[in-house]
Amino acid sequence: MTTTAPARPDVAELLRRAGDLVRRELEPLEPTLLQRGFRAVLPQLQAARRRARELGLWTPHLPPEHGGLGLSLAEFAPLSEALGRSPLGLYACNCQAPDVGNMEILLAHGTDEQRERFLAPLLRGEVRSCFAMTEPEHAGSNPVWMSTTAVEEGDDFVLNGHKWFASSADGAAFAVVMAITDPEHENPYRRASQILVPTDAPGFRRVRNIPVMGDVGEDYFSHAEILLEDCRVPKANLLGARGEGFAIAQERLGPGRIHHCMRWIGICERAFEMTCERAASRQLAPGKPLASRQVIQHWIAESRARIHASRLMVLDAARRIDRRGSRAARLEISMIKFFVADTLTQVLDRAIQVHGALGLTDDTLLSFWSRHERAAHVYDGADEVHKTVVARMALKPYGVDVRL
Amino acid sequence: MTTTAPARPDVAELLRRAGDLVRRELEPLEPTLLQRGFRAVLPQLQAARRRARELGLWTPHLPPEHGGLGLSLAEFAPLSEALGRSPLGLYACNCQAPDVGNMEILLAHGTDEQRERFLAPLLRGEVRSCFAMTEPEHAGSNPVWMSTTAVEEGDDFVLNGHKWFASSADGAAFAVVMAITDPEHENPYRRASQILVPTDAPGFRRVRNIPVMGDVGEDYFSHAEILLEDCRVPKANLLGARGEGFAIAQERLGPGRIHHCMRWIGICERAFEMTCERAASRQLAPGKPLASRQVIQHWIAESRARIHASRLMVLDAARRIDRRGSRAARLEISMIKFFVADTLTQVLDRAIQVHGALGLTDDTLLSFWSRHERAAHVYDGADEVHKTVVARMALKPYGVDVRL
Amino acid sequence: MTTTAPARPDVAELLRRAGDLVRRELEPLEPTLLQRGFRAVLPQLQAARRRARELGLWTPHLPPEHGGLGLSLAEFAPLSEALGRSPLGLYACNCQAPDVGNMEILLAHGTDEQRERFLAPLLRGEVRSCFAMTEPEHAGSNPVWMSTTAVEEGDDFVLNGHKWFASSADGAAFAVVMAITDPEHENPYRRASQILVPTDAPGFRRVRNIPVMGDVGEDYFSHAEILLEDCRVPKANLLGARGEGFAIAQERLGPGRIHHCMRWIGICERAFEMTCERAASRQLAPGKPLASRQVIQHWIAESRARIHASRLMVLDAARRIDRRGSRAARLEISMIKFFVADTLTQVLDRAIQVHGALGLTDDTLLSFWSRHERAAHVYDGADEVHKTVVARMALKPYGVDVRL
Amino acid sequence: MTTTAPARPDVAELLRRAGDLVRRELEPLEPTLLQRGFRAVLPQLQAARRRARELGLWTPHLPPEHGGLGLSLAEFAPLSEALGRSPLGLYACNCQAPDVGNMEILLAHGTDEQRERFLAPLLRGEVRSCFAMTEPEHAGSNPVWMSTTAVEEGDDFVLNGHKWFASSADGAAFAVVMAITDPEHENPYRRASQILVPTDAPGFRRVRNIPVMGDVGEDYFSHAEILLEDCRVPKANLLGARGEGFAIAQERLGPGRIHHCMRWIGICERAFEMTCERAASRQLAPGKPLASRQVIQHWIAESRARIHASRLMVLDAARRIDRRGSRAARLEISMIKFFVADTLTQVLDRAIQVHGALGLTDDTLLSFWSRHERAAHVYDGADEVHKTVVARMALKPYGVDVRL
Repeated sequence: MTTTAPARPDVAELLRRAGDLVRRELEPLEPTLLQRGFRAVLPQLQAARRRARELGLWTPHLPPEHGGLGLSLAEFAPLSEALGRSPLGLYACNCQAPDVGNMEILLAHGTDEQRERFLAPLLRGEVRSCFAMTEPEHAGSNPVWMSTTAVEEGDDFVLNGHKWFASSADGAAFAVVMAITDPEHENPYRRASQILVPTDAPGFRRVRNIPVMGDVGEDYFSHAEILLEDCRVPKANLLGARGEGFAIAQERLGPGRIHHCMRWIGICERAFEMTCERAASRQLAPGKPLASRQVIQHWIAESRARIHASRLMVLDAARRIDRRGSRAARLEISMIKFFVADTLTQVLDRAIQVHGALGLTDDTLLSFWSRHERAAHVYDGADEVHKTVVARMALKPYGVDVRL
Repeated sequence: MTTTAPARPDVAELLRRAGDLVRRELEPLEPTLLQRGFRAVLPQLQAARRRARELGLWTPHLPPEHGGLGLSLAEFAPLSEALGRSPLGLYACNCQAPDVGNMEILLAHGTDEQRERFLAPLLRGEVRSCFAMTEPEHAGSNPVWMSTTAVEEGDDFVLNGHKWFASSADGAAFAVVMAITDPEHENPYRRASQILVPTDAPGFRRVRNIPVMGDVGEDYFSHAEILLEDCRVPKANLLGARGEGFAIAQERLGPGRIHHCMRWIGICERAFEMTCERAASRQLAPGKPLASRQVIQHWIAESRARIHASRLMVLDAARRIDRRGSRAARLEISMIKFFVADTLTQVLDRAIQVHGALGLTDDTLLSFWSRHERAAHVYDGADEVHKTVVARMALKPYGVDVRL
Repeated sequence: MTTTAPARPDVAELLRRAGDLVRRELEPLEPTLLQRGFRAVLPQLQAARRRARELGLWTPHLPPEHGGLGLSLAEFAPLSEALGRSPLGLYACNCQAPDVGNMEILLAHGTDEQRERFLAPLLRGEVRSCFAMTEPEHAGSNPVWMSTTAVEEGDDFVLNGHKWFASSADGAAFAVVMAITDPEHENPYRRASQILVPTDAPGFRRVRNIPVMGDVGEDYFSHAEILLEDCRVPKANLLGARGEGFAIAQERLGPGRIHHCMRWIGICERAFEMTCERAASRQLAPGKPLASRQVIQHWIAESRARIHASRLMVLDAARRIDRRGSRAARLEISMIKFFVADTLTQVLDRAIQVHGALGLTDDTLLSFWSRHERAAHVYDGADEVHKTVVARMALKPYGVDVRL
Repeated sequence: MTTTAPARPDVAELLRRAGDLVRRELEPLEPTLLQRGFRAVLPQLQAARRRARELGLWTPHLPPEHGGLGLSLAEFAPLSEALGRSPLGLYACNCQAPDVGNMEILLAHGTDEQRERFLAPLLRGEVRSCFAMTEPEHAGSNPVWMSTTAVEEGDDFVLNGHKWFASSADGAAFAVVMAITDPEHENPYRRASQILVPTDAPGFRRVRNIPVMGDVGEDYFSHAEILLEDCRVPKANLLGARGEGFAIAQERLGPGRIHHCMRWIGICERAFEMTCERAASRQLAPGKPLASRQVIQHWIAESRARIHASRLMVLDAARRIDRRGSRAARLEISMIKFFVADTLTQVLDRAIQVHGALGLTDDTLLSFWSRHERAAHVYDGADEVHKTVVARMALKPYGVDVRL
């Protein structure tokens, strides 16, 4: 479908194009996004998506045969950072979560029919999708504890359950739903499966978009609560093998985490620039900018060092995944998940403080990000879970079995 | 007007009543407040205000001759904490910012006519007011740098200027506006005056409620941007002496800061209880609550100690103000302003983390407070300003003149 | 022995005298202490002790009938702080750890004979003592896990075991030794007893003074490793009832912790003053002192606030102990133990950084304290243990049983 | 002298050899070093140096023509880390500070005669040297403010001044002394020169080894205070051009800083391993190791991530120096200087806490390092100076001129 894409340019050229796209097409949309929400920018964002295609930036993470650029993860990292500088960047290039993860598992596990029906329109950017795993009744740190069930009835699965934080479900064409299909399996990690559920399937009910940190959200920028009430889909909608739900979720989460971290670096850089810009231009008294204050200077230095450390760690993890697969990079992935999240929180918080009252308003991106990305410490494994993973690996050679 | 108030009970009894008021009248309103905003709870809140009067909790900070309880600040502190446990608590007792500060300066500086016209309905809870000092073009850390002017024309002042973060201006009957009346005065601290401006005065324009941390706000819960365009008020609306605007602002800010700190302790206690409650009830696996995790336990211990330290510091500052006046307590006030703000931020952030995904939603008070109280580090003097004040006082005996 | 002590003056007067004692008698000894060690100042320190007696500052923590001033703990706190400003202050007044704790348990549990033989010379300052509880083989956080035994043989106890961190054993006349006397008791908290062991008893061997943070120590300033090898003492040396060893240790530790915290406040104040003095006098360039740097100013402000918070917490804990006993103040004691230790570490570390290279040398008290007081986070319950205690008490009302 | 060195093996092989050297030759010496000091291990250390030569690890940082391995800085980094795991590692391979810096400036600026007389025996490991720049009267953050003078008299320079923290002066054959030779030069950065001063020159007086953090030090492990009293050396001892003293000092400091950082990574790794080992083996109760505590696990995870970040940053800086020179890497060097110093302090402090009372003793390397490396935040530019450097570079594009 994307055979017209230009031959892949080098990464530096891609970064230049991505920078242009963000500056020219997306930054002008940000004030409207902040004031009036996602739907208000959607028409112009569609135009920006067309421009992204022309620039050869469409689904850059995918192999060429699926319309992508065949970038390694380490090559994709700086591109993702460049796009992450705007809340609209990754969406413009159709490499936004949660679709990017769904594309990957459909590519890896989808049947031909599933690819045709679910993946193809996703790759073309005609539809969006969501992923429904988390349940309000169960702690995310225990991924095998789940109540949603999918029971076989004739040619169908009948799903019942309660999900939430299904990001971007509002407006999505389908959900990938994790449900218990084999409750009696002796191995708790083999009890769940992933099932493709169109959002217009009978019994699929989006209860609400959950208001999160002051934003009820809409369309792509939203997190839904979902009820599955005798929701019926054909057995052919089983994605991957039965009982492989947990394994596929893990397969999806590993790269998903690094995708978030890459994006966070972009946010950090933009917030850092805003900080410097504000410190230089805000006058405490005529001729005496905020940047003349040593405490502000040291915040800037500390942020600079933290962002630099974070970027190097993300690149290092990406290279390891490229070479040895995401399973071999579990240590690196868990380290960046909590380390970069801390960087993000600190950089944004100091950017806000440097902006003073303005930083508190929704007139800049800082409040938007500080609220939307507070979740960085929670989703895809809370900081505490990843620290435990790292400790587990560090202590194993000493004969200690750290339980997650 | 409040001669029917019961004889003042002791503080323990007041705290009991305040606790009842919060639990019975206000907590039930909180879900509606969170979901539908301030106006949606206003009718019931008026009923709660009547109940507060019956309980003898009305304007408790004021002397009995003005309808209050004649509490010292140190006596008011635990009451303020008890009320601060709900976002509606202080409002229910008519001792909410910014009205409480305006009451104080009207009592201290108002003419009989001003007291009759502006103060009396405020004390009766019939109207609300706001305070318009901050300007978007000037850093708050330099309070003598201001552009708004009030020029005499005949019997009037004509005001022109641009203010923002005038909290609760939406729905207020009048504003206390700080404006330059004597631009040529050699002492920059004597150039401004405070002027009472009805919000329906010609030329007073509330441009918007500023969206702050995801909340555009409404009515009492709002922060307005205001334009004064040839806004005309009688000279008789000058509050206090001409040129005393800075002095009155300082007089208002000193106790204002401790009022915020008292309230923050209440927020911390409520968030702390929510943390313990959640940690105890959230199951990581059947029979294994979150509270069994040592990291959570230590967060709880650290929060307990920080809150305890904060409360003791606030009480100590209150006692010093009671005995020697707020000017003599500048050191104590500056210390609590940044120390308690840090406590608040840390306690709320950990409460959110313990609540996991739920903590991110607007279904609990935690997101509300974490967003609304981020401003604690900025308003009434940013943390950095108060640290400089403390350093200035510490270094003075050593012959060092720290400039603010 | 202390019938000649003057009638007890008020606390302000005591503080004045203590300040004089420290400034005139003790500060002049500090350079020698730092350069040549404790024994080098001992003769002059004995003179200072005589002066302390004359000033009515001797054993101020004790009731008048035992030669003390009958101060409440809350009255003693500021005195202890004043004395804590010098490493020699508490010793000069014979209220130094570990003797102060031994005095207390001898007063509470000693037989007449024990009081005559062990306590009386201690109160007169003729001898010193030590406390031998900790064992290198067992974690201090599990106080009932202990290997040292005391077995009855005829009229004697025969002790065997290995102790360390017996502070001030070098030069002590006797040790209070905790040993298992009833290994089969079903209650592990009833297995140990406290036994008075003269250091010249056969089989009592001080192996070495343990080098701690660069200081092998000597005499009072030392921490010994001790072997008990068939060490024989009369049964009459049992202190308190058999099996009460754990209870007596706890009784000793509670107030012991607050004694340390009081002293730390004194150290913090002195280090804070040194910081201001250095910042004011150290020139970065001619006429531009270090104190002109905003980062230094903010350290000073943060230290000021932390010390203030710590002092208030210590006083609050002292008042609670005075009113309700140390058992009722477990929460407050555990909170100050870790909170004030953090304050101490932070204040000292920043004082060192402000002093630059000089701060690293042993030419000032800062290195001495930073090294000697690193133990604050470890002894009498590590920070982690006290945090667990606080969490245990906070979570109990929610039905959670936190295990220590 | 080094023509017999084996052909340079690859870095992995060098690391293997360095690991062997440390484990087999140096770790066994550490207990003696800790208990009895540097001189006590010197004979065995000389043997270890011979072994290092045999292993082809001698002066590995130097080009082959000077007896080194011709390693790039990025190749040297992991080797330096491997050697840094022991306090004796870099010394054993003759690549220890301050000699390594003196070798570099002698190579770059020495005359043939200077190389023959001063450099050659240094390269052979027959002598040691020191660097005398810092003066107690002047803040290190202002490197052009200096009192030591060198005045021409006939064929000699006559030096007068007061230096301190001349590391390893005790036992050194010569010092590189920075002194003002051109006090009237209009450019303050051109007033000083570097002069080679044999320690037996008349008027060169080592006043004392400064006791630093509890250690008076001796021989290589020492920091001297030095008086130059009409100290006379031939003009031929001028190192580099007259007036180039500041430039040479900077040239020496840039790589010097990264050498320290590399070494610190080695310390961190060793301390981290000790932490895991202790956590795994220390029993809180029978069968329940310290490593089962979640707080300890999270410390381990946080240390792991910080060390990883630090190593990546150091490697990144080394690569940049290799490619573009140390001047082009000022940003990277300043960032690692304060970031890695923080890592070091945190990792060591937690290692001590995990070791409990044992961690406080001088029986392990932890106390040694924690005391000796506190200086990491001070020497070669305090943290605060490097933060200002980073801020200066970040704010320059915004038109702000941050003064150092």
